[in-house]
Amino acid sequence: MPFIIEFQPLGFRLVCSEPVTLLDAARQAGINLRSDCGGAGICGKCITQIFPNNGDFPPTEAENSFLSQEQLKNGFRLACETIVSGDLKVYIPSDSVIEGQVLQINGSQLDKTVEPLVHQITIELNEAKLNDLTSDLSRLKNAAGIRFETPSLEIIRQLPTILRANNWRATLLVNDNEPFTITDQPVTRLIGLAVDVGSTKLACYLMDLQTGEIIAAKGVPNPQIAYGEDIMARLAFAIKNHDNAALMHNLLMQSINQASAELCALCGASQSEIVDTCLVGNTAMHHFFLDLPVESLAFSPFVAVISDTLYPYSNEVGLAAMPGSRVYAPPVTAGFIGSDHLAFLLNEGFADSEKIRLGIDIGTNTEIALQKNERVVSVSTASGPAFEGAQIRFGMRAAPGAIEYVNLGEDGTVHIEVIGNIEPIGICGSGILDVVSEMRRVGILNKRGRMEKSATGVKLDNQGKPFFVLAQSKERITISQNDIDQILLAKGAIRAGIDILMDSLNISPQDIEEVLIAGAFGSYLRPEHAMHIGMLPKIPMNKVRAVGNAAGSGARMLLISKAGRQKADRLAQRIEYLELTVYPEFPLFFARGIQA
Amino acid sequence: MPFIIEFQPLGFRLVCSEPVTLLDAARQAGINLRSDCGGAGICGKCITQIFPNNGDFPPTEAENSFLSQEQLKNGFRLACETIVSGDLKVYIPSDSVIEGQVLQINGSQLDKTVEPLVHQITIELNEAKLNDLTSDLSRLKNAAGIRFETPSLEIIRQLPTILRANNWRATLLVNDNEPFTITDQPVTRLIGLAVDVGSTKLACYLMDLQTGEIIAAKGVPNPQIAYGEDIMARLAFAIKNHDNAALMHNLLMQSINQASAELCALCGASQSEIVDTCLVGNTAMHHFFLDLPVESLAFSPFVAVISDTLYPYSNEVGLAAMPGSRVYAPPVTAGFIGSDHLAFLLNEGFADSEKIRLGIDIGTNTEIALQKNERVVSVSTASGPAFEGAQIRFGMRAAPGAIEYVNLGEDGTVHIEVIGNIEPIGICGSGILDVVSEMRRVGILNKRGRMEKSATGVKLDNQGKPFFVLAQSKERITISQNDIDQILLAKGAIRAGIDILMDSLNISPQDIEEVLIAGAFGSYLRPEHAMHIGMLPKIPMNKVRAVGNAAGSGARMLLISKAGRQKADRLAQRIEYLELTVYPEFPLFFARGIQA
Repeated sequence: MPFIIEFQPLGFRLVCSEPVTLLDAARQAGINLRSDCGGAGICGKCITQIFPNNGDFPPTEAENSFLSQEQLKNGFRLACETIVSGDLKVYIPSDSVIEGQVLQINGSQLDKTVEPLVHQITIELNEAKLNDLTSDLSRLKNAAGIRFETPSLEIIRQLPTILRANNWRATLLVNDNEPFTITDQPVTRLIGLAVDVGSTKLACYLMDLQTGEIIAAKGVPNPQIAYGEDIMARLAFAIKNHDNAALMHNLLMQSINQASAELCALCGASQSEIVDTCLVGNTAMHHFFLDLPVESLAFSPFVAVISDTLYPYSNEVGLAAMPGSRVYAPPVTAGFIGSDHLAFLLNEGFADSEKIRLGIDIGTNTEIALQKNERVVSVSTASGPAFEGAQIRFGMRAAPGAIEYVNLGEDGTVHIEVIGNIEPIGICGSGILDVVSEMRRVGILNKRGRMEKSATGVKLDNQGKPFFVLAQSKERITISQNDIDQILLAKGAIRAGIDILMDSLNISPQDIEEVLIAGAFGSYLRPEHAMHIGMLPKIPMNKVRAVGNAAGSGARMLLISKAGRQKADRLAQRIEYLELTVYPEFPLFFARGIQA
Repeated sequence: MPFIIEFQPLGFRLVCSEPVTLLDAARQAGINLRSDCGGAGICGKCITQIFPNNGDFPPTEAENSFLSQEQLKNGFRLACETIVSGDLKVYIPSDSVIEGQVLQINGSQLDKTVEPLVHQITIELNEAKLNDLTSDLSRLKNAAGIRFETPSLEIIRQLPTILRANNWRATLLVNDNEPFTITDQPVTRLIGLAVDVGSTKLACYLMDLQTGEIIAAKGVPNPQIAYGEDIMARLAFAIKNHDNAALMHNLLMQSINQASAELCALCGASQSEIVDTCLVGNTAMHHFFLDLPVESLAFSPFVAVISDTLYPYSNEVGLAAMPGSRVYAPPVTAGFIGSDHLAFLLNEGFADSEKIRLGIDIGTNTEIALQKNERVVSVSTASGPAFEGAQIRFGMRAAPGAIEYVNLGEDGTVHIEVIGNIEPIGICGSGILDVVSEMRRVGILNKRGRMEKSATGVKLDNQGKPFFVLAQSKERITISQNDIDQILLAKGAIRAGIDILMDSLNISPQDIEEVLIAGAFGSYLRPEHAMHIGMLPKIPMNKVRAVGNAAGSGARMLLISKAGRQKADRLAQRIEYLELTVYPEFPLFFARGIQA
């Protein structure tokens, strides 16, 4: 008897056919629970909470030693010790998840209105008779009680046979008011796919369109990475010839199809049951998934081929889904402001209220939007990959072994935290930011961004260049002057973007009511450190909020909400793109931004 | 040097590369000029009028003998004697055309408003610059000055390359407001195809969409005839299995494609230049050309699968035309009232004014519409193929050798006219009607429709059954009692339809302001004879008009006129179908109708 383990708050469901430990089940569902000991019951990190806690799982020796009686009473268990053989709901505390190698796919979808564009209409008709000779299609339209467009010839060709074989009943699947499939029986569930097509990762969500719930989700690497870490390299590759361009498109769609197949398998569905899809991404990804030429994105002035909403058929973009179904590609704003930015802003309420607020999605390109009354102005700034660990000697992604937090004592002592609580092997974005902030605070770094060679912990290499020692394990983890320069450039680019937005809308930091920081890096960032090194202007901490993968959350909202899509079109019309490089005082703002 | 011969009033153009007689040229263009002598210059029937009449063609001996000085002065020549080697315009008098084997394709298109749905928009854009980063498509939309729908992904994929290779210029071909092709250069001409898909013939017209003129036209037999003369036989064949149904569709489309290829070749065009197509036909033909299932047309209660206007893509129905172009299939009314009926009524003004008028399209099924004020009521009546010569012993189509007119003297003498002025080999519909009318007039036929065995010209066969001798050449052409019964049934069905319409709309024959008779048979019919045998009620002759292939004319009008299509939708909504077989007094009306 198959049984289902449901993981909350993520909403993932896993169908199992044999007894399994919760730890293995979580792994199969794509959730990386912390497990320093590898499931041996000796580290006590894989804490989960089970429902119902009806005594089916008496605590083991390991659980009694790691968990309090209070915890056990409330259903907390060690996932590696808990063997499940029937339906179970499991809550995963955020502390129990390794965010590192699980590509971040969560984020909070704020607007949960369920109003999917795709719905089914089951229609019962009166049989045609000599005194009622209405044609089959008109008969269907009259009986439906809902207006819909004339269906495709393909559907009309199926109509008479279905009606007469099925006692004058038929079910239409309708996208908005466009019928795209006819069946004899109603479909048991309507599923859809939302994907945030990031340049690093693809966050894929299989959604129940009728409940608005996530059925299952999965993050997979963007396979284009093999052709360039950064977008410009991929564009350069794609424009060389048609084959390259086709490859970049096909790689993306293959990965999305593969992920969606796995998600469908989790709930016993077929990909051909996917009736609606929403894909968001930056403008390059948007053009790649639509298989549009990208030449115009590769060279100045960097214009998009299309900025409007598009609804191609799924087969036009190589997506595995129900024949006749469409893919919703929300509007993009400019060459470097894509539909992921729009999805982020929508999810965080930019279309709903007119606060003065700042939305920042930090990545290789950082998109920043500033809202003031009815205006929303967005910029894109080339912050580079430093925060993702690239171009930093010991830089790495936020994965086990990465130093994620750094504190320096006034005496020069170094306190670090490492993802997975193991020996450090490198430093990730939030750690890098911490280091620079802390080095500046304790005076190791002067205000021109130079290391003081005489400061505690600073050493000199063979060429007499200073470096700072962060950790000394098997390998010595250090920060060089060049690393610091990269970080200052990155944070300077972001700060210049923010300052120019404030300047153009005539806003001071104290006017800002809310700062929303999206993206993986944003979730680890310590805002006080970001302010301390001047990446962000000084804004009260309680106004700053990390929102995770808000673009993915926005994509989910857009998948299930007709009103959301209407809002998207309206907001897209309102977003003003500001090209930083032509802003009169850009050099000045940038020079100010990179100061330590 | 190729040259062009233009035939008026048909509007056909023939491209020639070598000197040719006008007679041969006309044959190549699909026009069967009368030529009893086969082009030997001795019958004088192939009279045509040439423009300009500038003395390039001095009269030959034959022409001097057959044509008056007045005629010669006005450009009249014998086509067989006139050798053409340069551009020439030729007028063909209707007396010079054999209507027989040329399948009738002409008819007068009354509304000549040229307002094609397909047009081209050539757009010049400002180049994208850093201070104008509008996307390619938005830039195109803004510069167009005309609103159009978001094009297909396929067009958007071509847009950036065309713009940048062509100095920021592009041409869109737009159907109504749907772009379906993008090119770098404007198209030199926009051509379209209108086809009246008859169950006997396909009347194909290649049209210039910008001038509304016929470029060339061609009538070809409906190849489905091999699978049944009448529609019911073809439906029975088609519903046997999928292959049969596919065959019926494919045969039609192959013939249409073949005819359109030949028409295109005449004007040096390619079929891929056809940007719009209008197909009309009875409901069975409509379903066949759209490849819709026909089961519902084959069995009572005979309902159409769809009655609404359809605009499938040309490739969806197997039509050779420009990729992305659409086929316009106007609405049908009922199982036996098709879009050819609608096209006929539209062409004759049923949508424009509210006369009390009767429209009759005589065929195996005869469709009849009666208009009174805002109401238009239509019936279909199974008049059978007698008027097309079937089920009549010596019956034949209106082709050379067919007796087309018959007069009987009071003394029993028989006067006949034969198509092509050759020995008679049979009798066509109009001749049959004449015979019955004349036999009744001179008393050979009594009012119960029985031949008087004692009358002059009546003989008895071996079984003692009477027959009437019409002509005695190589073979004896006769009319039997059975032939007369067939004709009486046919005319009775038509008369019952007319009477029931008048009854249901409470109209008397004297109220009727106009009677329009469409179809090949209608063109030959002598209305006074039709009234004499009671096929038509007694209506003043000046109110009766033969309109030829008005459905074909209507199809041409619908091809080139957006307003026409809107009228079509409105008129289709207004046409009320009256099912004769459920009319309370149908048997009585029919019994009255078949009286001689």
